[in-house]
Amino acid sequence: MNARPPHGSARPGGRTARTRAAVLAAAYDALGAESFSALTLDKLAERSGVHVSTIRRRWRTVEGVVVDLLAERSSTLSTPDSGDFRRDLHELARSIGDFNNALRNRNLIQGLVAAAAYDPRGEEILRDTFVGRIDERAPIVRHAIDRGELPADTDAKDVIAALAAPFYYRVLILRGPIDARLVRTSAEAVYQAARAGVFRRENEAPGP
Amino acid sequence: MNARPPHGSARPGGRTARTRAAVLAAAYDALGAESFSALTLDKLAERSGVHVSTIRRRWRTVEGVVVDLLAERSSTLSTPDSGDFRRDLHELARSIGDFNNALRNRNLIQGLVAAAAYDPRGEEILRDTFVGRIDERAPIVRHAIDRGELPADTDAKDVIAALAAPFYYRVLILRGPIDARLVRTSAEAVYQAARAGVFRRENEAPGP
Repeated sequence: MNARPPHGSARPGGRTARTRAAVLAAAYDALGAESFSALTLDKLAERSGVHVSTIRRRWRTVEGVVVDLLAERSSTLSTPDSGDFRRDLHELARSIGDFNNALRNRNLIQGLVAAAAYDPRGEEILRDTFVGRIDERAPIVRHAIDRGELPADTDAKDVIAALAAPFYYRVLILRGPIDARLVRTSAEAVYQAARAGVFRRENEAPGP
Repeated sequence: MNARPPHGSARPGGRTARTRAAVLAAAYDALGAESFSALTLDKLAERSGVHVSTIRRRWRTVEGVVVDLLAERSSTLSTPDSGDFRRDLHELARSIGDFNNALRNRNLIQGLVAAAAYDPRGEEILRDTFVGRIDERAPIVRHAIDRGELPADTDAKDVIAALAAPFYYRVLILRGPIDARLVRTSAEAVYQAARAGVFRRENEAPGP
C-alpha cells in the first residue's frame, strides 16, 4: 500500500480512491470551519469515517493530508488560452484571486507555510507544488511569444511568478482579503512589464 | 513595567534598554544558527543572561520577542530619496532583497508567518508591522508624483506593496534565495507598471 501513489487514480472507483476522496473532503470541510492549527488526524477520522490508523499509514501527518488536498484543488485550476496575452493574464489573476479568497484555501496556504517553517519535508513539498503550478501556467507566456506579443527571450516562469506574488503577499504578510483591484493591478502590472521587456533573460532587459 | 512600550527608548542607557538589547541580540544570534521552531524562552535566557521570568514578563512568548526584533531590524532600513523614481525603486528592492537573504531574517519572517497561523495576536502584529513598513516607504512614490514622474492619482501603498511582494513569494512560497535578477525585475516591473498608470486609483487605470 505504501508504494502506491497517494492519488489512488489507478482504480477511480476503488476503495483506495474512495478513502482518499473521503479524507480530503473531510479536510476541505474542516478548513472551511476552523484554522489549520485546529486540525488533527482524529478529527479527520471522525469527519471522514476512515479509521485514523488508515489515515496515518497513508498520509502520516495532518500536513501530509493538507499537501495532498492542495495538489487536488490546484489541479482544478485551468490554464487560460484565449489567444490574447493580456486577457489570459487577467483570467489567471482572477482564478488565483478566487482560489486564495476562499477561507478554506487561505487556511490551507497559511497552514502549509506554517508547516514548512517547522518541517523540512513540508518545505520541500510546498516548493515543489508551487514550482509545478508555475510550470503548468508557463504556456500562457510561450503562446504569447509565439504570437509575437512578447520578446522571444522572455522568461515564462518569471512572468507567472510575478503575477502570483501579490496574492500571496496579501494573504500571508498583509493578512488581508483579495479584492478586484488587486486582481486587476497584478495582471496589468505584469502585462505592462512583460511588454516592456522586463522579464527578458539576463543582460537583455532594461535597467536604470 | 507592563504599561511601558517594549522599545525602552525613554532611557537609552537604562536597564530596560540594556535588557531589551541583550534579549534581541540573543534572538538575532540564535536565528542565524537555527530555525524559529528551535527557539525557546529558556534558550534566550541562557544566551542573553537575562532571567527567563523577566523575558516572559516583557514579551510573553518567543513570538513576542521575534516581533520586537523585526520592528528593530526593519527600522534600520532607510527609505531611498535620490530624486529619481527608478533609482529609488531599485535601491529599495536591493535593501529588501538583502534583508530577506540574510538567513536569520528569513528564519525570522518564516517564523512570524508560522506564528500568525496559530495565533490571532501574531497575525495582527504581522499585519501592523508590514502595513507600517509600506507607509514608511510611500514617500518614494509621493515624491515621484511631485516631480511629475507618475500620474497624480497613483496609489503609493499599492506601488510599494507590488515592489515587496515578489521577495516574500520567493522566500515563503518558492523557498528559494533572492538573486540579483529578482531584485532587478521586481524594481523594473513596478517602474514600468507605475509609469503606465497601472496603480492609478479605481476607474482611472487601464484594463484589457
